[in-house]
Amino acid sequence: MQNLFRPLAALAAILIVSTAASAETDPLPSWNDGPTKEAIVGFVEKVTEESGKDFVPPEDRIATFDNDGNLWAEKPVYFQLLFAIDRVKALAPEHPEWNDKQPFKAVLEGDMETLAKSGHAGIAELIMASHAGMSPEEFQKIVSEWLATAEHPRFKRKYTDLVYQPMLELLSYLRDNGFTTYIVSGGGIEFVRNFSQDKYGVPPAQVVGSSIKTKYELVDGKPALMRLAEINFIDDKEGKPVGINQHIGARPIFASGNSDGDYQMLEWTTAGDGPRFGLILHHTDAEREYAYDRDSSIGRLDKALTDAPEKGWVVIDMKNDWKTVFPAAN
Amino acid sequence: MQNLFRPLAALAAILIVSTAASAETDPLPSWNDGPTKEAIVGFVEKVTEESGKDFVPPEDRIATFDNDGNLWAEKPVYFQLLFAIDRVKALAPEHPEWNDKQPFKAVLEGDMETLAKSGHAGIAELIMASHAGMSPEEFQKIVSEWLATAEHPRFKRKYTDLVYQPMLELLSYLRDNGFTTYIVSGGGIEFVRNFSQDKYGVPPAQVVGSSIKTKYELVDGKPALMRLAEINFIDDKEGKPVGINQHIGARPIFASGNSDGDYQMLEWTTAGDGPRFGLILHHTDAEREYAYDRDSSIGRLDKALTDAPEKGWVVIDMKNDWKTVFPAAN
Repeated sequence: MQNLFRPLAALAAILIVSTAASAETDPLPSWNDGPTKEAIVGFVEKVTEESGKDFVPPEDRIATFDNDGNLWAEKPVYFQLLFAIDRVKALAPEHPEWNDKQPFKAVLEGDMETLAKSGHAGIAELIMASHAGMSPEEFQKIVSEWLATAEHPRFKRKYTDLVYQPMLELLSYLRDNGFTTYIVSGGGIEFVRNFSQDKYGVPPAQVVGSSIKTKYELVDGKPALMRLAEINFIDDKEGKPVGINQHIGARPIFASGNSDGDYQMLEWTTAGDGPRFGLILHHTDAEREYAYDRDSSIGRLDKALTDAPEKGWVVIDMKNDWKTVFPAAN
Repeated sequence: MQNLFRPLAALAAILIVSTAASAETDPLPSWNDGPTKEAIVGFVEKVTEESGKDFVPPEDRIATFDNDGNLWAEKPVYFQLLFAIDRVKALAPEHPEWNDKQPFKAVLEGDMETLAKSGHAGIAELIMASHAGMSPEEFQKIVSEWLATAEHPRFKRKYTDLVYQPMLELLSYLRDNGFTTYIVSGGGIEFVRNFSQDKYGVPPAQVVGSSIKTKYELVDGKPALMRLAEINFIDDKEGKPVGINQHIGARPIFASGNSDGDYQMLEWTTAGDGPRFGLILHHTDAEREYAYDRDSSIGRLDKALTDAPEKGWVVIDMKNDWKTVFPAAN
């Protein structure tokens, strides 16, 4: 009997060793070891342990991620605003009236100070002028062309190269553990959908975002949707839980953001029953990326940073927690 | 050599036979053989044949289904309206003013004629009174309790037993072939989400529907969403392509509906490039279910029925195409 079982025992030993080796493969290689990484891995192991008291069935493993400053960079200003500016410049020849009309005049003269002073209303006007008056398909084409050619002023790389490598690993790690990953962006839903599958592995249907209204109509007898210069929904602050509930129909168990615009998403997510995880990316790395928080006009992180310890939200220290920031250049 | 390969050849033969047998297992057993079933199966085979000219990659295999009168019955009136009526009756003791106020008075007196005369505005008032003023979680609880106890007046079965067995098979068949199936309902998104996973295998995030607004607030310091008595979106007629684009971010290749409220969804879906499929359920079976079309106030099917041949939409003749209508009673 002993002899008969020896080969089986050897085989079992091989299987055990290879399983252990595979379990030891680091799913988050761009994260330094330390409390942040431990907290993330600990949470995922806890909710996926079938016999554990904190087990969460896969259909409830919903994770939501802010985009700007959380999955990709957002400085010097939101990349979508840079797209709007480039688009206004491209459309200017058809709009001579813009030469005398703010905020268009400021854009055409490269006067960023005046543009900044135009505030939310000015930005909204730019977005409408550059994002409406076409079908979603035409808009996708315009965004694709811009993303394929435009370059970040500091890093001299395409904007879609400025996604955060550690967050790409986190998205994959969560999905490998049965989570469904959603993007919940204050930015435009159709803008983010343009690259969400390619860059983040998140399909268009799993993107929640701000939107303008669209209208169904027949153009030369062909059915089409037309993008209108009218706000439909602002997916920011109190809008994030509203957008999540509308789109997903469930409360996430994991939320990740980087600014006070994500406060309510983090708050609503982590106030639910059972195991919950709130994650904040703190930009502390002026050398490799940017360092900003309480005083930044873009991506201000103030109240959420103050309340994080009390709320139990885990704060990523970009400089110390991340081995690399952006994917290696090709 | 011959001898050596004989066992392998025998094994191969067994494998081939068992594959063929499995391919012959009917995925749509409740559908009678005939042109309707052939058209459906032909479309699915064509878009999944990798080497074929009509191949559609899985991420683009999006199928949208209307709910009322398409996945479950809608007579004598939409089941959600019956829910609203029962809810108004349950809430009446807290609202003595309803005894003198239409359309509530009509509901409380069982005067369906006056209720019908109150039209869309009256129905909207009933929906607001019965669907708002609570969190989504509380609403789900109320809907669950109603669905667990309320009975259809004619069939004496729970409403969720009045789903169409052939459509359940079609949903599964499409999913087994790499489609993602969405419900796109004129009814309330949160109402349909209550049973979409259990009854249709469609998770809440894959339900598109009409909605009221919600507001994020702190109740006794606890974050909560509150359902407001204010329309957010009507997912009917021109609203269906708009809702689909907003929610899914893509144009379906397969759309299934049963009334003129689905016209634009069918039109937009089938006007796209490449292989497309439009499916209309024609209620022709007064004996097993109901027979109605052009003159019905609920689920009117007129223009879509007239235009179906020209548009290439396949029309299901319920009486002749379906072996069974509802799942067998337990």
